Amino acid sequence: MDKLSTESYKGVRDFYPEDKFIQKYIFDKMRQVVEAFGYEEYDASILEPTDLYRAKTGEEIINEQTYSFTDRGDRDVTLRPEMTPSLARMIAKQKRELAFPLRWYSIVNNFRYERPQKGRLREFWQLNVDMFGVEGIEAEIEAITIAYKIMRSLKAQETDFELRVNDRNSVNSFLNSLNLDEDKKYKITKIFDKKNKITKPEFEDQIKETLGDGAKEFFNKLKELEVCPEKVSKLIEELKKNNIVNIKFDPFLMRGLDYYTGIVFEVFDTDPENNRSMFGGGRYDNLLDIFGEEKIPAFGFGMGDVTAFEFLKSRNLLPEYKPETDLYLCIIDEKFKGFTDELAQTLRDEKINVAVDYSYKKIGDQIKKANKKKIPFAICVGENEERKGEFMLKRLSDGREFEANEAEIPNTIKLLKIKCAK
Amino acid sequence: MDKLSTESYKGVRDFYPEDKFIQKYIFDKMRQVVEAFGYEEYDASILEPTDLYRAKTGEEIINEQTYSFTDRGDRDVTLRPEMTPSLARMIAKQKRELAFPLRWYSIVNNFRYERPQKGRLREFWQLNVDMFGVEGIEAEIEAITIAYKIMRSLKAQETDFELRVNDRNSVNSFLNSLNLDEDKKYKITKIFDKKNKITKPEFEDQIKETLGDGAKEFFNKLKELEVCPEKVSKLIEELKKNNIVNIKFDPFLMRGLDYYTGIVFEVFDTDPENNRSMFGGGRYDNLLDIFGEEKIPAFGFGMGDVTAFEFLKSRNLLPEYKPETDLYLCIIDEKFKGFTDELAQTLRDEKINVAVDYSYKKIGDQIKKANKKKIPFAICVGENEERKGEFMLKRLSDGREFEANEAEIPNTIKLLKIKCAK
Repeated sequence: MDKLSTESYKGVRDFYPEDKFIQKYIFDKMRQVVEAFGYEEYDASILEPTDLYRAKTGEEIINEQTYSFTDRGDRDVTLRPEMTPSLARMIAKQKRELAFPLRWYSIVNNFRYERPQKGRLREFWQLNVDMFGVEGIEAEIEAITIAYKIMRSLKAQETDFELRVNDRNSVNSFLNSLNLDEDKKYKITKIFDKKNKITKPEFEDQIKETLGDGAKEFFNKLKELEVCPEKVSKLIEELKKNNIVNIKFDPFLMRGLDYYTGIVFEVFDTDPENNRSMFGGGRYDNLLDIFGEEKIPAFGFGMGDVTAFEFLKSRNLLPEYKPETDLYLCIIDEKFKGFTDELAQTLRDEKINVAVDYSYKKIGDQIKKANKKKIPFAICVGENEERKGEFMLKRLSDGREFEANEAEIPNTIKLLKIKCAK
Repeated sequence: MDKLSTESYKGVRDFYPEDKFIQKYIFDKMRQVVEAFGYEEYDASILEPTDLYRAKTGEEIINEQTYSFTDRGDRDVTLRPEMTPSLARMIAKQKRELAFPLRWYSIVNNFRYERPQKGRLREFWQLNVDMFGVEGIEAEIEAITIAYKIMRSLKAQETDFELRVNDRNSVNSFLNSLNLDEDKKYKITKIFDKKNKITKPEFEDQIKETLGDGAKEFFNKLKELEVCPEKVSKLIEELKKNNIVNIKFDPFLMRGLDYYTGIVFEVFDTDPENNRSMFGGGRYDNLLDIFGEEKIPAFGFGMGDVTAFEFLKSRNLLPEYKPETDLYLCIIDEKFKGFTDELAQTLRDEKINVAVDYSYKKIGDQIKKANKKKIPFAICVGENEERKGEFMLKRLSDGREFEANEAEIPNTIKLLKIKCAK
């Protein structure tokens, strides 16, 4: 038999416990913030009928970026590239049973066939936060406040990131007023998308190259586009009242997807080396019409784990790995196995997470393993321990030992853990 | 534009918040138990190179049951039908860096192309619990204890389920001693698989039909198979010492997958209407050799959410839906929005999860919505509340009202919640 490769599929990740720990840290923080604002978790399968993505999704995604195939029953299916269409489908289906405003979140994986690169993988996990049923600016304020609070709860400073806001309608009106064909319009939006990464002369050159004689009209009208729309200035003003000051109007902010109908926002990394959009969202009031349902106003955003990870890493904000296991029990000789198992069970009943080393190797080796696993405490069980019921609780970070009988172990561990956390 | 269907893909589920709540309840209980035993969470992508499943997996699964396709770069890929091959791949890859015994768990989704039916869907989520590096019976004892404790933590009585144990080697030796061709051997294992669902005469008829003249030898040797192997009786004895008494030897227990090398176990529903295997696992000491790696002894099991859900439902053990949101703030008039938002934020800072109703509809309608969302408490904010800073906290389950000022609200809610839980 040929030897199989141990590599995962290209552009996806294996999560070893240390990696899963980080991902859980990121999503736990997000979860705390969105639940504080009354959002309830939903979920859907990653496998969807391909039709769901044929309408309304950005052309680029349908044509080149999805994982689509035919199942054994000849149905066209797609691994979801984003959650919003599934969400809209679920809302449309149960619309009459649901009470609006509706606040829902999900933490799910998405697949996109892209060239894997830093901050972009073929599979990423994403928090999705959406509010349905609020037409007014309250939805925008809440969503952007949540995005801000998530960044802060991940320990980002206000200077580490910047919120940028625009009204998609202003850009649409501007582009429509130029009477461009679809191809030129598309090219202009792509230039807008990268505007903050290029210099002003580069921007102007690219516009001229794309529009030729039309460039003159473009630059004439550009001043109108650069005036902050009232809706945007009102929103920024309200957010500043909530002490969110790292926010500004960006007339060129587009966001790729077709379904946005109003305010869009993005959160940018302010690192000059890596000044790019990390995540964002916007208003999409018309999405339910693809299901033949009445419109419901909607505002939402998504925040992926890959960009969040890269951001936290670059700012040294990643937490140190701590396993869920509190205590490692080392057995000095096989004959103490029964006693050790009973001790383990007693401690588990007291909410101490206990792993037992059944290797019966030298104690030094067992302690080494506990250290490698980063388990904070260890106890060795042998003759003395069984006879006297007295144990030495070893704190592995500094090797200090604490005497305790069986009943005292749980509280000793809990107290020492609190001290460490401080 | 054609109207799109709101149906999900066949055999997969949408999780509305009420459904997600149940799934989280099930997996939270599982998580608590496995973490108490020192297991650490890992994860991998659902998309794997198809080669991973070409070796060692049960024939049935590879040939007819996987979702396999070719990606845009011409790579053969498969949506994982089970987690063990990915796990083995990850262990093989990092073997030299890992400290054994290794205890890992995951909660992931799997896809199988099957005809959807009760308790079987095309996508199911599953807890996977595996220990690597323990050759002795300690691994079997721990895994079966965990399976038992998970059932108990889901509030199952001992009479609701039964653990059955066998040594796969005994069955293999028995089948080999009959010198059957592969096809007959396969048919016999299928008859064994359903033995507990058919009568003894039916069993005998099916054996005779399959083996013809060979049936005589089969029945002669059957008595040997029905003697409990020493390994199994030792295991059962040890588990009984741990007060796990709903356990027995089952000489016909096979478990479908090819990679098992020793003890296998399954957990059966004891409901006479639905007496079937819910989940199980076994020893698989040779799986790493497909990666050209040395063997590492391994024991593990998987427990799916669909069967767990059906079991809990049939025993009336499903919990009642409770949203994460504690409090619904109703706004009597739009002019109190600013004050209400400030109140919401103060309460959120005190760990109260607060949703605000921005509909500005009649208060009665807003309260109705809070009820529909099953949020436990509501406060209406208007003139009086803003002026006096005094609020009426309404408990929606019985309509009782509790007076509280802003500073008192968090503790009032916390105390009332504790009372309710009792």
